[in-house]
Amino acid sequence: MNQFTVTAVPNIPKVQKGDNLLELILAGLKEANITLQDGDILAIAQKIVSKSEGRKVLLSTVTPSHQAIEVGEQVDKDPRLVELILQESEEISRMRKGVLIVRHNLGFTSANAGIDRSNIKQPDGDEVVLLLPVDPDESAEHLRQSLLESTGASIGIVITDSHGRPFRMGQTGIAIGVAGIPALIDRRGDTDLFGYVLKVTEIAVADEIAATADLLMGPGSEGIPVVHIRGLSYAQTEGKATDLVRPKEFDLYR
Amino acid sequence: MNQFTVTAVPNIPKVQKGDNLLELILAGLKEANITLQDGDILAIAQKIVSKSEGRKVLLSTVTPSHQAIEVGEQVDKDPRLVELILQESEEISRMRKGVLIVRHNLGFTSANAGIDRSNIKQPDGDEVVLLLPVDPDESAEHLRQSLLESTGASIGIVITDSHGRPFRMGQTGIAIGVAGIPALIDRRGDTDLFGYVLKVTEIAVADEIAATADLLMGPGSEGIPVVHIRGLSYAQTEGKATDLVRPKEFDLYR
Repeated sequence: MNQFTVTAVPNIPKVQKGDNLLELILAGLKEANITLQDGDILAIAQKIVSKSEGRKVLLSTVTPSHQAIEVGEQVDKDPRLVELILQESEEISRMRKGVLIVRHNLGFTSANAGIDRSNIKQPDGDEVVLLLPVDPDESAEHLRQSLLESTGASIGIVITDSHGRPFRMGQTGIAIGVAGIPALIDRRGDTDLFGYVLKVTEIAVADEIAATADLLMGPGSEGIPVVHIRGLSYAQTEGKATDLVRPKEFDLYR
Repeated sequence: MNQFTVTAVPNIPKVQKGDNLLELILAGLKEANITLQDGDILAIAQKIVSKSEGRKVLLSTVTPSHQAIEVGEQVDKDPRLVELILQESEEISRMRKGVLIVRHNLGFTSANAGIDRSNIKQPDGDEVVLLLPVDPDESAEHLRQSLLESTGASIGIVITDSHGRPFRMGQTGIAIGVAGIPALIDRRGDTDLFGYVLKVTEIAVADEIAATADLLMGPGSEGIPVVHIRGLSYAQTEGKATDLVRPKEFDLYR
């Protein structure tokens, strides 16, 4: 039967800098009675990858630049947060009161450079924000290799985040790191039932997998940061999330 | 266990105008040994809904307007196709050689007003194109009601299409018709593990469900136009795909 299953991996604890994600994931899989098999996919929320990599920044340690103060006033955001957003980005895409959309150094276009400040507050009232992993494709590949070594299973990894979109309301899960599966499937030349050659159609399968996992991850993704998918069959080609970044010259909406 | 399954409904035949989708779907479900239950979701490819509603147009029957001829020259497309695209749309969003992105009368912003011409050709060489359903939310609601009457199960329906996106490469499945489930889930006020109140986060669950189904639908979606999802638990509130359309005044990328 052409079917796949999507399972929340239970009891992943709160992640701290330096935590071994591999061990946490293996413990969660064991609890769910899941033995990894070749071709399985794990979707991992960006938040726990960033935390394990120590990407938290205390806002009190940030000195905003002149530009950050100016932009902060225009968009009505904390200038220290704006400073971090600008450091993480190659350019501002759009801004308006309450909204700062940038093109991240990694190529992704999203609000606030993917910096999460919604739910981390220190006991002393200082505020912690969380930057994206330095190189999410590399983080995904590292996890894939570690899981291969410890379980023998060759699986796919998708590191997920949630982005808003032009034209459409609401956020959806998207892939910011990919390993072991393609990010894009190119249907150029596939034929349909009538034997005509279809025109170029590329499907962003890694984004679709991230959206699928996001249906279980829930708010903030802290509760269920790891989702297991079994039964999707793809060529085990090597894709990267950067394949999903539209080059500037092909983006009519910059 | 927090888990859902996604199953391709087999052997849905090629759909013609006037075909009873309800019967085709029930026959496919029977073949897959699926008995519908309350809370199940069916994702249905736009293409078979449009065909059953007779939305095919023979290009030879279309007389292009002066504007369609002009735009056709600029974007290098058949002026008769452009005429249909303009009739289906409220405005042109972007155009460039080979690319015509419009805001559809239904609110969706996508290439060619969602008109599909990739794989329908008549034996005599004339070309047929396929418009979107007239009111996909209504088509979804109609199917939902029919399935409720014939099976007793209260399920959700998502009519799916594939759209390209600014910023990101590749198409993903999106929802153009919704019934029986919410389109957007508003996480305003949900609290995270630490008890802080999260800021406004709306998740476009109907789009995520469409993306999930698209992983099985495959090229042109003619082969597998119906996908069954079981195990996702949402409040049975009434959403519509038009909830997912970003109002112009909130779209910074018009």
